[in-house]
Order: sequence, then C-alpha cells, then structure tokens
Amino acid sequence: MGRWQSGARERLVMAALDLYVERGFDETTVAEIAARAGVTERTFFRYFADKREVLFEGSALLEQLVVQTIADAPVDASAFDAAIAGVRATREFLVDRDFSRRRAAAIDANASLRERELLKLASLRDGVAAALRARGADELTAAVAADAAGSVFHHGFQRWIRGDSEDYSAALEQALAAVRGIR
Amino acid sequence: MGRWQSGARERLVMAALDLYVERGFDETTVAEIAARAGVTERTFFRYFADKREVLFEGSALLEQLVVQTIADAPVDASAFDAAIAGVRATREFLVDRDFSRRRAAAIDANASLRERELLKLASLRDGVAAALRARGADELTAAVAADAAGSVFHHGFQRWIRGDSEDYSAALEQALAAVRGIR
Repeated sequence: MGRWQSGARERLVMAALDLYVERGFDETTVAEIAARAGVTERTFFRYFADKREVLFEGSALLEQLVVQTIADAPVDASAFDAAIAGVRATREFLVDRDFSRRRAAAIDANASLRERELLKLASLRDGVAAALRARGADELTAAVAADAAGSVFHHGFQRWIRGDSEDYSAALEQALAAVRGIR
Repeated sequence: MGRWQSGARERLVMAALDLYVERGFDETTVAEIAARAGVTERTFFRYFADKREVLFEGSALLEQLVVQTIADAPVDASAFDAAIAGVRATREFLVDRDFSRRRAAAIDANASLRERELLKLASLRDGVAAALRARGADELTAAVAADAAGSVFHHGFQRWIRGDSEDYSAALEQALAAVRGIR
C-alpha cells in the first residue's frame, strides 16, 4: 500500500492505526485521527468514507488484481497453478511491512474487525473460485484450489509480518511448499 | 444433532430456524419462538441461553470431538491424516440433514450470523492446528494441514446439504479426493 500514500493521506493512515491499537477501534473518533495527523476532519473525509475504510479500502483492489491475474494465466495451467499466479500478484500490493503489521494488530484487537476481515477473505476466496470456474474448472476443484491458494496467501503473509521471513515473496514460496507437501 | 433432541427442545430448534429464515434473525424474538413451539419462554431458557445459542451451541462440542480424535490418531499418521481423522469424526455429529440445511439457510440470510460462523470455523481451524502441533508438527505444517482439513470439512458438508451427495460420509471422501488431487 505504501507506494500510493503520501503526505496527509499517509499521516492519516498511520495516526488511525496507532489510535486503533492504543485505544481500540470503537473508542477512536475521526476527530482524534485528524488531530493526531495534523489535518482537519474534512481532509480525512477527502480520503476515506469512514474510519473503517482506512483498514479495508485496499480489499476490493486486491481482489480485482488477483482475479484478473487468474483470468490471464496460461490456458493449460492447472486450477491451483492459476490461483497461485493470482496469489503471487499480491506482491505488487504488499510492499509496506510496517503498514501491514499495524493494520493486522489493529484488526486483531477488535472482534468486529476480525469478523469483517474474515468476511473479506471469504469474499476473496469466492472471487478466486469463480475465476477458476470461468477457466473451466469444475465446482469442487475450483473451490478446493481457491482454499489452498488462500492458505498459501494467509500463512505467507503471516510469516512475513511476524518476521519469520524478511521477504514477502520468499514467505509465499515457503507456504506454497508446505501446501504442496501435504500428504 | 437430531439424535439428542426430543420433544420441547426439538420443537424449539425447528421453530427458531423457521422464524430466522422467514423473518430474519434480528426480527425474531424468543417469545415468538416459544409461541410457535407451543411452550413458554421459560422453557426456551431452560435449553438455551439466548436465541443465538440455538444455532451455535454445538460448535464447542464439535471442536472438542475433532481435537480429541486428532490427539488419539496413530503416532505415525501424517499431520494431514490425523486432521482428516478429526474431520471424519464429525460424522457422529452431522446426522440430521434437515436441521443442518435449515441452520445453514438461517445463517446465510444474516450478515452478523455469517461473520459469527466464520469466526467459529476459524476457531475450529486454530484448535486443529494446535492439536497437530501437540503431536509434533511444526507450525507451518500444522497450519496448512488444518486449512486443508477445513477445506475438506467445508466442501464435504456443502455437498451433503446441497444434495450433491446423499451421504455425508461419501461427500467428505469426494472433497478429500479433490484436496489430495491439487497439483
């Protein structure tokens, strides 16, 4: 996300994440976020529809990128290989580990945000399964390949933000090897 | 679940599920559920702490059964095979397709119930991963095996309640074959 942020926007994101972790999402107001970022509330609303959007605005773009990459994968790629091409495309997106860590900490600290995150991930899996069916995979094959790719994405991401791997790309490949090793 | 229900309890469950589907979970009161089941509100509260419990009371028992089965699996079973033994143990639990269908329809119709269901499934996966680590699996292996077993459970269950397979056990084995076929 980092590469698209600059100035006021970036300060707003960092101020919001700090406050969500320190005080809790529910207890934080837009006025407080704006004050900490040194801008007006009006500036906040120029960038974000509400305080939840600071956390979830990237989800739809991410899903679009993943689904498009699957559609563009070689026609003879297996369902799982096409799904993995989609997962690898998230490397474009996940370049700012500090942001990703803070975002994850803010979400983990709040049950309703955790539920929302799970719903977004479920939507991403549904989008991947639909993209695989559009390539000709049968329903069950598409569904289990989407789940397995989701597992690679989730655990690769977790390894990266926890620092088990310095590099997001390497973390994804470690998770992929583990999934391929299931017996 | 059916085999443990009888009389007032079973009527309460069916009345609640009918009302959640017809009117929506949020719009249904305990008084209405009790009236439709032909019992008092007091009887409702003898069986259930609240109206959400009608849907989720089985989750903790299910997790306990799955985790215990994994702990009891042969020491030389792979992490995935142990997790699949846990999934197969759910056959004890899921014997009443009509109940399972109604429950799924009630949950699908309400965003907050869907979020809650996803949270329970995430908790089940965490429980499975912990049980696999307790058997000596490393963290990543345990996590991806738990995800893959969750995929078998979810899609086996869906095939059964949708009627793609008449038999829950056969549906699980079809989903397992699809997961093992991932390349």
